[in-house]
Amino acid sequence: MPLDHTAKGVYVIAPTPFLPDGRIDDASTDRMTDFFLQAGCNGMTILGVMGEAPKLDQGEALDISKRIIRRAGKAQIIVGVSAPGFAAMRALARGAMEAGAAGVMIAPPSTLRTDDQIVTYFRQAVEAIGDDIPWVLQDYPLLFTVQMTPGVIRRIVQDLPSCVMLKHEDWPGLEKISALRGFQADGSLRPLSILCGNGGLFLDFEMERGADGAMTGYAFPDMLVDLVKLSAAGERDKAHDLFDAHLPLIRYEQQFGVGLAVRKYVMMRRGIIGSDAQRRPGSALSARARTEVEYLLGRLGRTDPRARLAPAG
Amino acid sequence: MPLDHTAKGVYVIAPTPFLPDGRIDDASTDRMTDFFLQAGCNGMTILGVMGEAPKLDQGEALDISKRIIRRAGKAQIIVGVSAPGFAAMRALARGAMEAGAAGVMIAPPSTLRTDDQIVTYFRQAVEAIGDDIPWVLQDYPLLFTVQMTPGVIRRIVQDLPSCVMLKHEDWPGLEKISALRGFQADGSLRPLSILCGNGGLFLDFEMERGADGAMTGYAFPDMLVDLVKLSAAGERDKAHDLFDAHLPLIRYEQQFGVGLAVRKYVMMRRGIIGSDAQRRPGSALSARARTEVEYLLGRLGRTDPRARLAPAG
Amino acid sequence: MPLDHTAKGVYVIAPTPFLPDGRIDDASTDRMTDFFLQAGCNGMTILGVMGEAPKLDQGEALDISKRIIRRAGKAQIIVGVSAPGFAAMRALARGAMEAGAAGVMIAPPSTLRTDDQIVTYFRQAVEAIGDDIPWVLQDYPLLFTVQMTPGVIRRIVQDLPSCVMLKHEDWPGLEKISALRGFQADGSLRPLSILCGNGGLFLDFEMERGADGAMTGYAFPDMLVDLVKLSAAGERDKAHDLFDAHLPLIRYEQQFGVGLAVRKYVMMRRGIIGSDAQRRPGSALSARARTEVEYLLGRLGRTDPRARLAPAG
Amino acid sequence: MPLDHTAKGVYVIAPTPFLPDGRIDDASTDRMTDFFLQAGCNGMTILGVMGEAPKLDQGEALDISKRIIRRAGKAQIIVGVSAPGFAAMRALARGAMEAGAAGVMIAPPSTLRTDDQIVTYFRQAVEAIGDDIPWVLQDYPLLFTVQMTPGVIRRIVQDLPSCVMLKHEDWPGLEKISALRGFQADGSLRPLSILCGNGGLFLDFEMERGADGAMTGYAFPDMLVDLVKLSAAGERDKAHDLFDAHLPLIRYEQQFGVGLAVRKYVMMRRGIIGSDAQRRPGSALSARARTEVEYLLGRLGRTDPRARLAPAG
Repeated sequence: MPLDHTAKGVYVIAPTPFLPDGRIDDASTDRMTDFFLQAGCNGMTILGVMGEAPKLDQGEALDISKRIIRRAGKAQIIVGVSAPGFAAMRALARGAMEAGAAGVMIAPPSTLRTDDQIVTYFRQAVEAIGDDIPWVLQDYPLLFTVQMTPGVIRRIVQDLPSCVMLKHEDWPGLEKISALRGFQADGSLRPLSILCGNGGLFLDFEMERGADGAMTGYAFPDMLVDLVKLSAAGERDKAHDLFDAHLPLIRYEQQFGVGLAVRKYVMMRRGIIGSDAQRRPGSALSARARTEVEYLLGRLGRTDPRARLAPAG
Repeated sequence: MPLDHTAKGVYVIAPTPFLPDGRIDDASTDRMTDFFLQAGCNGMTILGVMGEAPKLDQGEALDISKRIIRRAGKAQIIVGVSAPGFAAMRALARGAMEAGAAGVMIAPPSTLRTDDQIVTYFRQAVEAIGDDIPWVLQDYPLLFTVQMTPGVIRRIVQDLPSCVMLKHEDWPGLEKISALRGFQADGSLRPLSILCGNGGLFLDFEMERGADGAMTGYAFPDMLVDLVKLSAAGERDKAHDLFDAHLPLIRYEQQFGVGLAVRKYVMMRRGIIGSDAQRRPGSALSARARTEVEYLLGRLGRTDPRARLAPAG
Repeated sequence: MPLDHTAKGVYVIAPTPFLPDGRIDDASTDRMTDFFLQAGCNGMTILGVMGEAPKLDQGEALDISKRIIRRAGKAQIIVGVSAPGFAAMRALARGAMEAGAAGVMIAPPSTLRTDDQIVTYFRQAVEAIGDDIPWVLQDYPLLFTVQMTPGVIRRIVQDLPSCVMLKHEDWPGLEKISALRGFQADGSLRPLSILCGNGGLFLDFEMERGADGAMTGYAFPDMLVDLVKLSAAGERDKAHDLFDAHLPLIRYEQQFGVGLAVRKYVMMRRGIIGSDAQRRPGSALSARARTEVEYLLGRLGRTDPRARLAPAG
Repeated sequence: MPLDHTAKGVYVIAPTPFLPDGRIDDASTDRMTDFFLQAGCNGMTILGVMGEAPKLDQGEALDISKRIIRRAGKAQIIVGVSAPGFAAMRALARGAMEAGAAGVMIAPPSTLRTDDQIVTYFRQAVEAIGDDIPWVLQDYPLLFTVQMTPGVIRRIVQDLPSCVMLKHEDWPGLEKISALRGFQADGSLRPLSILCGNGGLFLDFEMERGADGAMTGYAFPDMLVDLVKLSAAGERDKAHDLFDAHLPLIRYEQQFGVGLAVRKYVMMRRGIIGSDAQRRPGSALSARARTEVEYLLGRLGRTDPRARLAPAG
């Protein structure tokens, strides 16, 4: 089923599981896919920054996309196709859609500066991949150094009908959600799904500002599912109670570079993947950092049974 | 008393209080100074980024420095003297020290890239201000875009005896503290006070990694004082309990640009300053954001009486 | 006489002459001012980047402005007032205008990214200095990392009537001049003086694209005067012949950082200033580089007598 | 024959010829290869930035490499293998070497900042491609925003024996060549070929500072061959006379983004390639710019017969 603007809930950002020797870990890929969907995620986004996409070659990227799409059955898989050039972007996008992906995600290259450069880039990207592929606009200025105002996002969305979703991870970003929802209220912006990333660090308030859900890779996506439901049900205090219990770990995961190491470590500890290995260049957790993560898991386990794990090897 | 490497505790980053018309608010400046010192802070750092220093002209900067130094009595005042050129830096540094400052703080200009450029810059800065002024090295890559490795910090500290303190606000930064303390353990780095900034977002673990305290502007510096004491006393769980209760607000304050607006708003609500006005270009809290801050204060008030405030206006 | 949009010719970017010990060299400042005006320059722009403005303190900046304005008599002096904050910008702008400056020049701070941020910044700058001061918009993306499209420049100029001139130094920038002149042809942009900087590297074609003259600091401003006249007179081949003879040196001067050292060295060799000293942090010419400059002067002297200098000390 | 540190002369940076519809133009590729080698170039560097490498997909990159290597016979072909990840870098590097390439070229990713990050990156790159492949270190800070001091280059070269050449295109960069040759004189740096890029804008003096030749894509590589020979023969004045005649066009080609359009246009006009088409995103010459290039060619033709071209279609 192709992605459209009605998408809601949690589309978890999936890491790419590797074996310690650097090869892709197929068994963990399957187990992880099963886990995410059983946890209540509505879909998965693969080959994003956290998926170490640039470290895969073109064949590997398509292979793992096919494997996950096949495994996921009816759940929607979004494939990150950001690339330094349009030829590679097109090849992956067409290949993934043929394999059954629900849509693709595109981030702006870090050289873009002016409003017009940004709008032009996405217009050319859509010409390259074809305007029949639903796609997600990734807005992550802290990482990509590209700043899109709400007005620029509106220009992109209005110009390009195949854009159906915003992966919102500006920081600070609460007012941006309000501005975009305001555009829709005044009729100047068509319907658009907004899912929030940035590690989930502001998801509590982002939902209240009008987001449709989460698209991030926090190691407890099952908690994100609960949070989105509580928030949608108007259970404000309960949503914040749940969020606040996880915030010390969410915050710890939100360390540039190290974050992925934390995330993979916790997923390995939860049994979701077999190894926390990254391809080079990657960052590893120090022994000290591992004890800090264990301490945080221990504290979290007091209120959330999902964090009560068997002692680390 | 001049600053030296034995400094510990909390040196609060002070905002500059303005009246709604943009003039400096002297009465609030006095009240704020009194509050910080009564709250147990060991000192104050003024005219930093959060102090809107670049928005003051040269005369104003020296005037407010003198006022706060006089008011603070024996407490140590550190004056931010970062400037686009050494002439202005020297003028403020010498003026502040003559007025009784304990030391100055210097940040690197955002044009520095290579290790050698960084080391040379600080050598020239010390030549400019004079090597008799104790100074704090500010390491804040996210804002200044200058990346100093532990090795570069060691070169600076070993070369320049008047450098007595590191304002540590790299992110992620836990391993950097461990690396510097490791240098000291192996004898390659002389004693150095390390106080942590970055809004306090990792202060719980930074203390455990060997930091000497905090130098940040979170609107509850009295909480920072407690946290540093608990951590120093080895009360790990109690320290984390206190920290975790404040984390939702610390996190909310940690929004680039908006952060200062949150901080000044909460200080105004606590009666520490009279207005949350900023000089231009500044950022203001939206009505919606104010209700979010009030909600966070309400939740915090359940466990920390300091956050139980009379209803807003 | 205040600056307005009819300004034409050469407004030379003046360096700030220093004595070898770092103090401002008043005698050289006077001699340089006389030289520039006798050479046919219509005005001077002081305290720009090449004027080492950030290395002066506030008092020095105003003092040297007054001295040059007084010395220049009826010639128009433009004072660079770019500053990290509006308080300092206002103080210098008002002071310079009271002393008789023709206008001021403002560059965008390097943190600006989006079109709206840029437009807002200049609006606030004009509010700060007052809308009665004619000002020059400096567009130098290579140095300031701020990219203004022709459309953004139009928004600024149309919004802010006191903006009367563009210091054009985008690179590449020929199409930008054509675009702006096209806006004027279609009635969407009001009259605006365009003077070109960027070391003069494209001045031959910039004049042909519609520029009104030069605002740069090449060490032979007397050549720039001739070139602008030849170009205005439609003497295309003669203009290029003159330009091409100077291009090897113009190109050599166009070295980031080192450029000012070349410029000051040549001016010293021509007897315009007494010393090529810079304040720290500055760059000096190596012995090898000095011989290269001398070689270039020797070659230039074959066709331009102004470059036939007595052998270096 | 594998590349080694004795390489001298001109290794021209080759563009990738496209047909107007965006497909690779094989016939032009062959003609261009023949032209470059008959013009006296010692080798070619393909799939660099000017070769629009990121716009090719993985298969295309390897295909065109094989075609050119086969066509070039004994001439040395260097293949740019810079990639966002090591998997793609390794695949192209091994594939190119198997096809008979003489070596590969690697540029640093723009995220590198500290000296250690840079050194580590190249160490990991060599581990990825294998230490049996001779490679060229590309030093182009203006484009890649990575600044390598002479000391860092020395660390890389001394650590990694398979690094045999520096593509020097720092700007300003003359002192860097002198510094590296000084390191070799004092025995701290092993032999290293230094070929200069940056459009050739400083090639006259770079040769005099000790460079071994040129690696750039100026549309008259046959002139570069002459210049390098004259310079090597100690014919200083003749070398500068030739260089200065071409400098107006070299300068015009040296426009960021537009430069490739100029280059391809002139090559098309010279009959070297069939079309000046670029893949998207690309920049095209305006009609006005084309007349400027024709004017420059006309002027150049007065002294260099190679620039006397039949009138443009």
